[in-house]
Amino acid sequence: MTSAEGSRAEGTRVSRRKLFGLAGAGVALAGAGAAAGIGIDKATSGNAEASTNTVDFHGEHQAGIVTPAQANLHFAALDVTTKDREKLRQLLKTWTDAARRMTAGQEVVANGAVGNGAYAPPGDTGEALDLPPSNLTLTIGFGPSLFDGRFGLAGKRPPQLIDLPLFPKDKLDPARSGGDLCIQACADDPQVAVHAVRNLVRLGFGVTEVRWSQLGFGRSSSTSREQQTPRNLFGFKDGTNNIKAEEPDVLGDQVWATAADGPAWMAGGSYLVARRIRMHIETWDRETLDGQEKIIGRTKGSGAPLGQTAEFDELDLDVGGAGGEKVIPEDAHVRLASHQALNGVRILRRGYNFVDGSDGVGHLEAGLFFLAFNRDTRKQYVPMQQALSSKDAMMEYVQHTGSAHFAVPPGVTRESSWADALFS
Amino acid sequence: MTSAEGSRAEGTRVSRRKLFGLAGAGVALAGAGAAAGIGIDKATSGNAEASTNTVDFHGEHQAGIVTPAQANLHFAALDVTTKDREKLRQLLKTWTDAARRMTAGQEVVANGAVGNGAYAPPGDTGEALDLPPSNLTLTIGFGPSLFDGRFGLAGKRPPQLIDLPLFPKDKLDPARSGGDLCIQACADDPQVAVHAVRNLVRLGFGVTEVRWSQLGFGRSSSTSREQQTPRNLFGFKDGTNNIKAEEPDVLGDQVWATAADGPAWMAGGSYLVARRIRMHIETWDRETLDGQEKIIGRTKGSGAPLGQTAEFDELDLDVGGAGGEKVIPEDAHVRLASHQALNGVRILRRGYNFVDGSDGVGHLEAGLFFLAFNRDTRKQYVPMQQALSSKDAMMEYVQHTGSAHFAVPPGVTRESSWADALFS
Repeated sequence: MTSAEGSRAEGTRVSRRKLFGLAGAGVALAGAGAAAGIGIDKATSGNAEASTNTVDFHGEHQAGIVTPAQANLHFAALDVTTKDREKLRQLLKTWTDAARRMTAGQEVVANGAVGNGAYAPPGDTGEALDLPPSNLTLTIGFGPSLFDGRFGLAGKRPPQLIDLPLFPKDKLDPARSGGDLCIQACADDPQVAVHAVRNLVRLGFGVTEVRWSQLGFGRSSSTSREQQTPRNLFGFKDGTNNIKAEEPDVLGDQVWATAADGPAWMAGGSYLVARRIRMHIETWDRETLDGQEKIIGRTKGSGAPLGQTAEFDELDLDVGGAGGEKVIPEDAHVRLASHQALNGVRILRRGYNFVDGSDGVGHLEAGLFFLAFNRDTRKQYVPMQQALSSKDAMMEYVQHTGSAHFAVPPGVTRESSWADALFS
Repeated sequence: MTSAEGSRAEGTRVSRRKLFGLAGAGVALAGAGAAAGIGIDKATSGNAEASTNTVDFHGEHQAGIVTPAQANLHFAALDVTTKDREKLRQLLKTWTDAARRMTAGQEVVANGAVGNGAYAPPGDTGEALDLPPSNLTLTIGFGPSLFDGRFGLAGKRPPQLIDLPLFPKDKLDPARSGGDLCIQACADDPQVAVHAVRNLVRLGFGVTEVRWSQLGFGRSSSTSREQQTPRNLFGFKDGTNNIKAEEPDVLGDQVWATAADGPAWMAGGSYLVARRIRMHIETWDRETLDGQEKIIGRTKGSGAPLGQTAEFDELDLDVGGAGGEKVIPEDAHVRLASHQALNGVRILRRGYNFVDGSDGVGHLEAGLFFLAFNRDTRKQYVPMQQALSSKDAMMEYVQHTGSAHFAVPPGVTRESSWADALFS
């Protein structure tokens, strides 16, 4: 029996069932459809991975910061369209419940895709129904504009949450910059990340709308020693010296805001800088290997710092070459971005590569969607980017086209919500 | 000993080695870097999966058509910028060699990222160096405009390769439509697909340039019975009734061009229709479950045709409901797209979901990048799309924003190239 015959036979069996009363008006049929679909909550789908590849939503800090970087990103910046403080507060609570569910591999609301009844819109949009949780994390942030007075939050604005300065060579597109709120969704399946953002956006209808949105892939930095260092679109290993989840002292020093830093509501939180960095890959690809390696300060193959032999060899900025010139040039990216050159300052990078189609003049619109978490952007990202944007040899090959800054509040418990710290 | 100390110790060891002569001018260091990087051809990287998750590039038909749909897509349409027929022919040969290598998990040229020497640009851009082959397929197509006479190919244009008509409600963006050539890259890792397209584009410098490019994820149709049916961004299973790799008779009837069809050079090839379909997901999400299911003609949970109980139950277009109305409405998508309604006509769909950021008015720019292969677009895709665009209830929720049509030549042997059929 061919498979086609098999399905025909099954079809016949169903037709027979219909004779006994299942056939009927739309209501009955929709009911039958719903019955067939009931119980497809992903956490109970029987997928062996589904129960294990989840990241706990709860904790002192939000997930999605030191969580080993997942393969895919969907990042959305939103503007609040209401002036009603209570609606915003309620949305943040609703979003928390939704995020709690989705990161556990469940639909956004219980039995959402089919359980609301035939004559209501489904509670979940459904495109992730059959997919495992895929290590989904959802991380929220509050932009400077959220504290402009519309919601009585002006007094709550953290001094660290500055309006970022315009850096040399910035060419920022307002349509890719700013935002009252951000949602960072990371997952090992892009459809899971997209589904999560979409359903949060949907829950925000009438309160928020999408200002800009960015997909990314091929995490451009590892955030855990468990992970192989990935490569950026310049073909180089990126993030070798990134802060790792296994370095609690460094995280405490460089990433997590404290009550003493002020404001108290941000204790356990962090500050997120998002920069859309267009890479002129066609120009880069015409640079010699030697030139590329001197711009980066690492070898292309192994990722070893110039003058060393293996990727994780310590960066030695003083190694001298022939003629007294330093092996790692003065304008090399690794030098300027190193904590040695920045008085010990570091950041936790968590960016993703992107290709957003083509640019209309024959090239791929490709680059790095840079995401970095730091304890105080004024003291960490800003001086680093000042140094890079004014001196980095790499600046010839990149252009910052989008920019945003967010205060990322601390994590939540099973009982608390993303609204609590902000509105406490 | 902490890991930081460990790397410091290693750094010291290397510093000691430097005392014995490794430190030196840029040349020597670049050499050392290259040495450390040599032999990183992915096929020999020791990754257990690397040798197994490849798709054979060679065959009667090009790979990437009936190949079980991979998770990610990068599709590029290119224009030829030279008028030199020989350069085009040579590029197609070069591309074939490059595709043969990359689909085998190798760099685009042997030892490309670091093997050209320090003072030449690397032969491979490098970002896929550490990644397994990921089932990469590369599929080439020729657009109608390639046969306009610039290359002496006017007499070779297949009659099937029509300029697609404008369908009702089309709102096509010229910047997302057409193209002299296309490259479809599919892989289970987006970075592998992006790397492949980028390196082919790079090899084409001076001969071709990118006209438009599209990334996709979450394959929106399965092409093999081995695969679970994925869901599109309407949250519905899509492609249940798609032509599958396991149906050689149907493929022969509906997908593969024959010598008898003419032209002879297309025997074993197919015709590819690409349509960028923006989905108005926010509007869709406000539709009731009953409404959504009647528009699609399937239940949302199980994917069963309305009136049936399981996904693969045969579509019965005549099931009657209460009041004499058909259970699958006259304007349901499954009815209009069914071979029952189209005199037996079918197509092989191989599309992907996309989210291209936001649309500037508060919504996600999301949809379906529709790819379909058929034996004769005039007799298959065109009548199907005429029916859908004029009658399909789904048209209220979608808009076709890009369109292209390509003749996809037959597959190649280890000795032949993508140039051979066209220039034979």
